[in-house]
Amino acid sequence: MDFASILIMMVTLIVLAYAASAIFERFGLIGLIGEIVIGVLIANLAIGDWSFLGMLDINMGDDPSQNYEIIELFAELGVIFLLFSIGLETKVKELLSVGKAATLVAIAGVVVPFVAGFALILVYDGNAHHALFLGAAMVATSVGVTARVIKDMKLINTKETRIIIAAAVIDDVLGMMVLAMVVAMTATGGAASDIVVISVEALVFVLAAMASALWIVPRLYNFFEERRKKKVAKGKGASKGIDKLILAIAVCLGFALVASQIGLAAIIGAFFGGMLLAEYAPRWKLEEKMESITALFISFFFLNVGMHVDLGSMTSLTVVLLSAIIILLAIATKYVGCSLGARLGDKSLTKGSRDIIGVGMVPRGEVGIIIAAIGLASGAISSELYGAAIMMAVATTIIASPLLAWAFRKKYPPEYEPAPEELV
Amino acid sequence: MDFASILIMMVTLIVLAYAASAIFERFGLIGLIGEIVIGVLIANLAIGDWSFLGMLDINMGDDPSQNYEIIELFAELGVIFLLFSIGLETKVKELLSVGKAATLVAIAGVVVPFVAGFALILVYDGNAHHALFLGAAMVATSVGVTARVIKDMKLINTKETRIIIAAAVIDDVLGMMVLAMVVAMTATGGAASDIVVISVEALVFVLAAMASALWIVPRLYNFFEERRKKKVAKGKGASKGIDKLILAIAVCLGFALVASQIGLAAIIGAFFGGMLLAEYAPRWKLEEKMESITALFISFFFLNVGMHVDLGSMTSLTVVLLSAIIILLAIATKYVGCSLGARLGDKSLTKGSRDIIGVGMVPRGEVGIIIAAIGLASGAISSELYGAAIMMAVATTIIASPLLAWAFRKKYPPEYEPAPEELV
Repeated sequence: MDFASILIMMVTLIVLAYAASAIFERFGLIGLIGEIVIGVLIANLAIGDWSFLGMLDINMGDDPSQNYEIIELFAELGVIFLLFSIGLETKVKELLSVGKAATLVAIAGVVVPFVAGFALILVYDGNAHHALFLGAAMVATSVGVTARVIKDMKLINTKETRIIIAAAVIDDVLGMMVLAMVVAMTATGGAASDIVVISVEALVFVLAAMASALWIVPRLYNFFEERRKKKVAKGKGASKGIDKLILAIAVCLGFALVASQIGLAAIIGAFFGGMLLAEYAPRWKLEEKMESITALFISFFFLNVGMHVDLGSMTSLTVVLLSAIIILLAIATKYVGCSLGARLGDKSLTKGSRDIIGVGMVPRGEVGIIIAAIGLASGAISSELYGAAIMMAVATTIIASPLLAWAFRKKYPPEYEPAPEELV
Repeated sequence: MDFASILIMMVTLIVLAYAASAIFERFGLIGLIGEIVIGVLIANLAIGDWSFLGMLDINMGDDPSQNYEIIELFAELGVIFLLFSIGLETKVKELLSVGKAATLVAIAGVVVPFVAGFALILVYDGNAHHALFLGAAMVATSVGVTARVIKDMKLINTKETRIIIAAAVIDDVLGMMVLAMVVAMTATGGAASDIVVISVEALVFVLAAMASALWIVPRLYNFFEERRKKKVAKGKGASKGIDKLILAIAVCLGFALVASQIGLAAIIGAFFGGMLLAEYAPRWKLEEKMESITALFISFFFLNVGMHVDLGSMTSLTVVLLSAIIILLAIATKYVGCSLGARLGDKSLTKGSRDIIGVGMVPRGEVGIIIAAIGLASGAISSELYGAAIMMAVATTIIASPLLAWAFRKKYPPEYEPAPEELV
């Protein structure tokens, strides 16, 4: 392994991403879009012969270079730590209180885009396999982008945020089932029984995590706290106890691992890991501690989203037009589906709140990219459709961020401080 | 890249390292030794067929597995961030104030072990190449271990600490010159002129870093601070300014990179990067922020030191005896050389202070391992001597930690709070 070349890459990318983010924010734009744009530029310029960027040795083709694999690793760790941080500020009771609304948001947000994507491609080229996969790619919601906007705006403790997060969790479970069905139907391996198995696994995981947060973790905490108090009472001098940051890191990565093993997104696991410790996070100062770690990695996530864009594939007018239609459809259907679900699920939500929820679910991010990649690898979609799906995943991410920030600001002006009754 | 297998590896290693460290500390031992021991166990058991550890997919042979390369990357990042943190708490004036003592400690600490190691191997097998390389491996000081002990004991602001750190910097420059000479003399590439070039580069780097810390950085800071104040005075509302954590990470990695490019250890560069920001670290809360990042990575460093031990090579009595003699000699000569240097360099140092300095310079850690590996790769030493050198690097690390903690505790009892006059 060439450590020096990894150091060059890390320093260059961290500085470039930060500079782009700062410049975008200077002009009133969303910082993460600057990071995605830098990713697009790097991936599309480095493939040429610009010697300085050539030093980065980023090769994303069939034989990904080691440096690119490090970027992917850091990207994945970054978004895992980000969702863990969101989990740290989300109590399970708050999540359950929005259960009905979130479920309807998720279901409508899955059905509407899938049907629309399926119909579009069926009309476009008549190939049902193509249509199924593109529909599946349009279902995915990447909550990483929304989470970053929410975190940057310090609006984690709003009802809309909780609905979006809960809906994203359910959406991920549903999306996984859709993907399993699509894979089975396009006969690239996998059977109907698989769908049942992974759906049950995912459900058990989510329920077990919530039950642990409600009943097991508090009991464990009280047990150790009692023991510590008894020791102190006996004059034995309390041991310093387990290192809370190491505990948090282990829980975060462990939950991400289990989730990814049963077919859920790793970030969904990390979110539940954070929720498990939400009750104790403030007194253990976990948010501040995790924030530094997240800051080291998170830019790689947005850079990496941008790096998947291959501008070279946007040469034919058909592809450009198709991509544009898919992008518009992806935004419209997710927004319509989710805000409709919100209206059905919770009558008390205002138009402003439904807008936030509808827009917040739009970004497809890395989840859409992963699904498109599975389709391409299994031969179920053409490379032309793959390119369009990637453009859709990246464009929804870029377009949704400022819309979400704007929708949030409309309801919660900068001087907003949450009132206790809004936190339910 | 198999992300799930990297997650399994990370979680397993972080938990095992923490558990070992906690158990060792419970029995009054130094935590990092527990981490090294776990490293030895993993490397030597995983090579067998224990299926659970087999999952870790750690292969350190000729074809290192990707997981092992990730461990090495995290190990290197961990010790870089650790030395950066030490730098953050070291002001350049404090470092210069111990310049004379540190220089003599470093010189005596290089000459004595080199001559002893060279003589031993010349007597043992009469091969001058072998003797030169083992002498060079015995010169190296790995300040990472000492830094961790000092940091865990919260004794960064003592005079002894400053002398050790400054001497380790000079030692690294000297050690690099010794290695360059040895490589040139064993004719494995490299010429006498190279020695001059890299020595000059190293000297320029160190002087430039110190000059920047003294004159350039304060002027830059004042410039931006003035500009910010003027803006506020004009009622323009201050911009939030550059993100201090990102700045710190970029400086840390950037300095590590430059140092490694000119042949110095990356950790020495990171230390100087930290020193550059030492004046502003408290108000920017950089120590706390870097501590979380270091905590994520640093266990990999100590695990990795242990993983280099190949117990399988310790089968012949000759190798075991030779290793034992080299270990004893490595400890004795570094201790004698450095405490002698301390006595010559600063008459005001007590016996207790000289003991701390002598013991603090003993660990050879990863630097000794790197030099031995260069010797093996170039064919200048036998695999038998390589094994012995690795054992020496690891054993000095393990043995020095408790001795250092004990020597520090003798002078600075647990209730010690530094008096202002001691901080000069």
